[in-house]
Amino acid sequence: MSCHNSVVVQASADEVWNVLRDFLDMSWAPEVIEQCEPQGGLPGTQIGAKRILNGTFQETLVGLDDHARTLRYSIDDGPDAVSKDNVQGYIATVQVLPITDTGESLVLWTSSWEWSGGGVAQFCNPIYQALLGQLQKHFR
Amino acid sequence: MSCHNSVVVQASADEVWNVLRDFLDMSWAPEVIEQCEPQGGLPGTQIGAKRILNGTFQETLVGLDDHARTLRYSIDDGPDAVSKDNVQGYIATVQVLPITDTGESLVLWTSSWEWSGGGVAQFCNPIYQALLGQLQKHFR
Amino acid sequence: MSCHNSVVVQASADEVWNVLRDFLDMSWAPEVIEQCEPQGGLPGTQIGAKRILNGTFQETLVGLDDHARTLRYSIDDGPDAVSKDNVQGYIATVQVLPITDTGESLVLWTSSWEWSGGGVAQFCNPIYQALLGQLQKHFR
Amino acid sequence: MSCHNSVVVQASADEVWNVLRDFLDMSWAPEVIEQCEPQGGLPGTQIGAKRILNGTFQETLVGLDDHARTLRYSIDDGPDAVSKDNVQGYIATVQVLPITDTGESLVLWTSSWEWSGGGVAQFCNPIYQALLGQLQKHFR
Repeated sequence: MSCHNSVVVQASADEVWNVLRDFLDMSWAPEVIEQCEPQGGLPGTQIGAKRILNGTFQETLVGLDDHARTLRYSIDDGPDAVSKDNVQGYIATVQVLPITDTGESLVLWTSSWEWSGGGVAQFCNPIYQALLGQLQKHFR
Repeated sequence: MSCHNSVVVQASADEVWNVLRDFLDMSWAPEVIEQCEPQGGLPGTQIGAKRILNGTFQETLVGLDDHARTLRYSIDDGPDAVSKDNVQGYIATVQVLPITDTGESLVLWTSSWEWSGGGVAQFCNPIYQALLGQLQKHFR
Repeated sequence: MSCHNSVVVQASADEVWNVLRDFLDMSWAPEVIEQCEPQGGLPGTQIGAKRILNGTFQETLVGLDDHARTLRYSIDDGPDAVSKDNVQGYIATVQVLPITDTGESLVLWTSSWEWSGGGVAQFCNPIYQALLGQLQKHFR
Repeated sequence: MSCHNSVVVQASADEVWNVLRDFLDMSWAPEVIEQCEPQGGLPGTQIGAKRILNGTFQETLVGLDDHARTLRYSIDDGPDAVSKDNVQGYIATVQVLPITDTGESLVLWTSSWEWSGGGVAQFCNPIYQALLGQLQKHFR
């Protein structure tokens, strides 16, 4: 099972990537992420960096690629459907692609997991849609 | 070296892919491709299908994937910068991605090659831009 | 959820791919696939080709790529854990990679699915291991 | 143009990845890399980390992915064919894949570049082969 959400953002791929690539800075999504608490002391571009979002989502940066403009993280524990009792092997991927004819970019926020007790996509899709909406608003 | 061109098309990924996936049907690009001549008798969704575009570009379908909505072909010979004397190992890839918040799609037309005597990107980029423009027009 | 199986085969990537790429020819796995029945009349390198394996597995070729030496198919219905009532959106991918220092190749047989009632990996992993064992034997 | 080199290593994908993932530790290749000098103060798992190999190869970590066991770096300047006057946009990728039936792993060291004055593959292939030989020796 998996989530697939994507939007066009009115900024270049480099500009959008520059905002997204720091795993510990979610200040571009103020209406969705009220609190982004770093854990463990690693900077937001070091693999293994950890954050707690809104006091509940525990996430770890597992991949970052400036060349492919791609970021990958795990959800290790969280509320409801993404608690560690209900989902295992949860990996989310954020990718920025250039739209060459307008200079804008496409941002894809996808995720998949190895096992779950159900309800994960229904829980996560609205969150990703809200985050992508915040990203559009940030560059409008 | 490589070419990277992409546009937003006002139709769903499935609709756009349905038009693109037949390698021997270029009727969606009438202002750029005046003639698409099948060679060798294979249908346009069989790997190994061959076409000659506008009497000069000799191309072979090397990959087609309905799941990833991706098509891949080689240019085996052609005019000017894409003649077999000037470029070797030329592979082009066309991919369709859904833009979930609007129901539109992003189409990427990229290419790369193993060796060239120069001038390939300058020659090919305007052609891919024209083809992508035709695709947008087809769905407008 | 997903399956991941891979083996080294004592033949070049081109030789192995040449055996694997025809979706309707499973004669290289005689001890596992007793019957490979084509359905619908398309040849085994045309996207959309269908086969029934051992009278029960109903599969469709959804992707084939001579450049990436990759083949992708869906299981549409089958026995036990892969019946259409127990699994949805089942896609398997076979890829051949060259091992350059020995001239051998690595073959990866992976699969994933969108939803299942359980037991799919336990059912499928031994089948893929048996198929990959047959492939090794074919080239020994 | 591009380089493609790969070898089987007698250790699990996790063990091999654990050795490779620190961009600033090349101690597993003592016969090829006599000196690995960190530049700029970032640790070897932070994107943007820089190293100078053997006093001449200037390289930057551009991607690292623990999930895909993939590392990507640029060569920014170097001797002979990889000097910045002879090659532009040089990106190398190292990937570790599990070989499930033996518990060993395949390591792929590939690279590509946007432009060069020639001779890059001839210069780089023996270096990658030597590095991969060192990796095999490290785990033997």
